[in-house]
Amino acid sequence: MRTQHEVGTRERIVQTTSRLMQRQGYEATGLKQISQEAQATLGSVYHFFPGGKRELAVEAVRHGDREFAEFLRTAFDQEDDPAVAIVTCTRDLANGLRESAWLDGCPVTTTALESAGREPEIQQAAEDAYENWRSLVRNKLRHSGFTDDTAHDLAHSVINMLEGAELSAQVSQSVTPLEIAGKHLARLINSYR
Amino acid sequence: MRTQHEVGTRERIVQTTSRLMQRQGYEATGLKQISQEAQATLGSVYHFFPGGKRELAVEAVRHGDREFAEFLRTAFDQEDDPAVAIVTCTRDLANGLRESAWLDGCPVTTTALESAGREPEIQQAAEDAYENWRSLVRNKLRHSGFTDDTAHDLAHSVINMLEGAELSAQVSQSVTPLEIAGKHLARLINSYR
Repeated sequence: MRTQHEVGTRERIVQTTSRLMQRQGYEATGLKQISQEAQATLGSVYHFFPGGKRELAVEAVRHGDREFAEFLRTAFDQEDDPAVAIVTCTRDLANGLRESAWLDGCPVTTTALESAGREPEIQQAAEDAYENWRSLVRNKLRHSGFTDDTAHDLAHSVINMLEGAELSAQVSQSVTPLEIAGKHLARLINSYR
Repeated sequence: MRTQHEVGTRERIVQTTSRLMQRQGYEATGLKQISQEAQATLGSVYHFFPGGKRELAVEAVRHGDREFAEFLRTAFDQEDDPAVAIVTCTRDLANGLRESAWLDGCPVTTTALESAGREPEIQQAAEDAYENWRSLVRNKLRHSGFTDDTAHDLAHSVINMLEGAELSAQVSQSVTPLEIAGKHLARLINSYR
């Protein structure tokens, strides 16, 4: 059994890794920086994560997975209409991005792209994250009366458009791509009613 | 004036850098690997690019910009209907990705994400690339009778959806996200006719 203190330190290391990899990617993030910013010794980083940076990256991606899933769940719980809920998501993502000075984009994408084809465990964690997010969108659409096939396909495009628009918003330091994404995703969803 | 040989070496260095950064990102790509794979000495890499890796990354992003612009131009020249042309693009992207063993995704995105907020020159080159690609989509749509406003917004979503679907296809090693992207982008474009 883990003590309260151990759970706290471990979680702090994972959160710090997730934030650093979100902002600068997997390759640029070192264990020394993680231990410093998490206020943990390098020894305790290795104690919790004997697999080092690769193991930590998997945990960071899973943390990002849970974080964005929670964001989607909150938006979907607050609004019955899936098209309206997606517009709210794009607005909240745009605000979050602007408030972080355009630094906090998707917590998974950069690490996923850097490791694709080279780090199977990290790639699998990223694929699990995308599938988890798609399943939340799929269930929301099914619950609103969309057929399984339509919900399946729309879930792909909702997550892909959010990813692409967030990336573009971050690079151009502008909320426009996300605003347009919200409008077009709502239009696409409504075209299947 | 540059000699024929010099142009050849410089171009080979840029192409190699672009391919390496496409596959493994900016951070994981070192000048030593670039010089080896481009069959150029480290001295000649510095001769052409005194600004080192940062300067090379800017050139690599510009190379990726031209490469994808050429891809879009070819697709648009071969097909009058912009919706059909975009479906062809998603099919060709899916085939290219599968044939490269899921390694050759967008030549700009990984580097753009790694450098966002940290390397203004690279970020600017990436923003220029996205804007160049959007302008090609915008012009194609205008030429097909769409209004300026509609063409402006659709161009954003076409590029963003292609980016997100390519990323998702790469991580899941499946053409499904790109196939769905083609179908939905055509539907979205046709909804404005």
